[in-house]
Amino acid sequence: MNARNRQILLSSLPEGKLSNDDFEMVDADVPAAAEGELLVRTRIISLDPANRAWMQGRTYRAQLAPGSVMAGLAISEVVQSRARGFAPGDIVLADSGWQDYAAITASEAIKQARVDELSHLLSAFGSSALTAHVGLHAVGGLRAGETVVVSGAGGSVGTSVGQIARIRGARVIGIAGSDEKCRWLIDDLGFDGALNYRAGSIGDQLRAKVPEGIDLYFDNVAGEILARCLFAMKIHGRIVCCGAVSQYDGPKPEHGPRGVPGTLIAKRLTMRGFILSDYKEERDAALEDLRSWVAVRAFRPVEDILDGLESAPAGLIGQLAGENRGKRMVRVS
Amino acid sequence: MNARNRQILLSSLPEGKLSNDDFEMVDADVPAAAEGELLVRTRIISLDPANRAWMQGRTYRAQLAPGSVMAGLAISEVVQSRARGFAPGDIVLADSGWQDYAAITASEAIKQARVDELSHLLSAFGSSALTAHVGLHAVGGLRAGETVVVSGAGGSVGTSVGQIARIRGARVIGIAGSDEKCRWLIDDLGFDGALNYRAGSIGDQLRAKVPEGIDLYFDNVAGEILARCLFAMKIHGRIVCCGAVSQYDGPKPEHGPRGVPGTLIAKRLTMRGFILSDYKEERDAALEDLRSWVAVRAFRPVEDILDGLESAPAGLIGQLAGENRGKRMVRVS
Repeated sequence: MNARNRQILLSSLPEGKLSNDDFEMVDADVPAAAEGELLVRTRIISLDPANRAWMQGRTYRAQLAPGSVMAGLAISEVVQSRARGFAPGDIVLADSGWQDYAAITASEAIKQARVDELSHLLSAFGSSALTAHVGLHAVGGLRAGETVVVSGAGGSVGTSVGQIARIRGARVIGIAGSDEKCRWLIDDLGFDGALNYRAGSIGDQLRAKVPEGIDLYFDNVAGEILARCLFAMKIHGRIVCCGAVSQYDGPKPEHGPRGVPGTLIAKRLTMRGFILSDYKEERDAALEDLRSWVAVRAFRPVEDILDGLESAPAGLIGQLAGENRGKRMVRVS
Repeated sequence: MNARNRQILLSSLPEGKLSNDDFEMVDADVPAAAEGELLVRTRIISLDPANRAWMQGRTYRAQLAPGSVMAGLAISEVVQSRARGFAPGDIVLADSGWQDYAAITASEAIKQARVDELSHLLSAFGSSALTAHVGLHAVGGLRAGETVVVSGAGGSVGTSVGQIARIRGARVIGIAGSDEKCRWLIDDLGFDGALNYRAGSIGDQLRAKVPEGIDLYFDNVAGEILARCLFAMKIHGRIVCCGAVSQYDGPKPEHGPRGVPGTLIAKRLTMRGFILSDYKEERDAALEDLRSWVAVRAFRPVEDILDGLESAPAGLIGQLAGENRGKRMVRVS
């Protein structure tokens, strides 16, 4: 066993944009597993825009504390088990943070099925694809023939939303940050259309590409793009609030609804926030769907894998600027 | 028959606050009813904050056009019928506007049941009480034992929301604009508590009066009060968007969601806009409830009746400033 345990600490809470200076790599001892715990070795860390939101304040979890190991989901291998039901060699998903080794409470680890590609546990069979599935169905009530618009379309959730909605018989328009990404969404991932929010008026582009109006807007970004999509909704449309990436990498956003309720009323819209962990009962069926779609190549895992623990900080910073394609992760061992 | 037909025109669309100068009273001929129409004589006009929203732009109806008779719901008596199913003396509800007489399409008139007090057709059995009923139940899914907060609590919808929620076994806190109104809500209408949004921090008052958090926030006002209530919601709370009175009497509000989605996600909230006319199937049962509650004095019609057609403009302006108690209306004849 490697006796070093490299850890990346969140040394300070960023005031403005997240930078490399907010992180520090240190060497620590490999921890010992106490009774009920597992010692795990990190294999692949999941990078998620939500990592940045956790630094802003309390969300669905407590705010991250400066000076501690940076939090984050990872796929790890059990090295030593002091808990029933786990054995060395098992692959688990847990919030074990940005480090080589961690001692984690067994009840907070989810044992993973064997897969051909370990990375698929974070892409096609991971939280982002499950979030897309649950958000479209259990939260959004997607029906065949509807028009779906998804923002952050090139990201891990966005690429999954587009693919799943297409499989379900919906028309899908993606919103992304470059013409090249838009072409990729259409040519490689089968989106029906895409628009570049950095190229001219979002409103005009929505009117041109979605003249019929939006039945379901899957919002990963909030901010101005949400504001524009609100106007393009059909009467009785639904907005699934999954993320607010445009608000994460800076000071904590002002809270205030401004004109939102007027539009919700005039169009009788429903706006619903959700997080995956509330949908435990839907999880198995969603995973079954994803497995069957991957098997017949209807769903393609879209992966963006960086190498080495030390690449995590820059990887997250770049992801917040939109440089990733699909699910970004860091291969550690 | 009185040969004069006094009409109040919306002579101009207000840019800032609505004023008397935006209205003009003119004399016109009493119109003739064409085939399929009814000639009606206005009895009581309903004044509603939404009247002001209709001037700002397209809502669930087209924007009001300057120079036409001011639009508004009214209870009227049929003088002449050229449509099947209606006879002189029938009492109808229709958007017949601010005038003594109107010729209206019969299919747009709703014949009213006989009641002891005509004004009850606009209060206990009218749109505001029905809106409160549908908003709490069909939209908001109210359950006994929950904590309900309602803004615009002293208004026509607000007083109905409070009374109905109490009947249903909820704890109800009202938000209103004066200490005196707050006392009235508690002492006369049975609210469990009330807070004056003009007296100190709304957030602090919510923390003190609703330490358990809000299950259902019935929003009549939007703006800052909505922003504060968002923070006071329980996980999985529901926000029923019924009105945005704080945004009506001024320029068209900026549209933009700012921090809303982040809060919706973190707390997995649902925010749903609605208008009563989408709930035709719930209407009869809701009316039956209201009739039975009024009969046993569990529900009290809260009425604020002005006299004379000429009092409508100042009545609406004052209502937008919050001077009314319960359902404001204008008795015309």
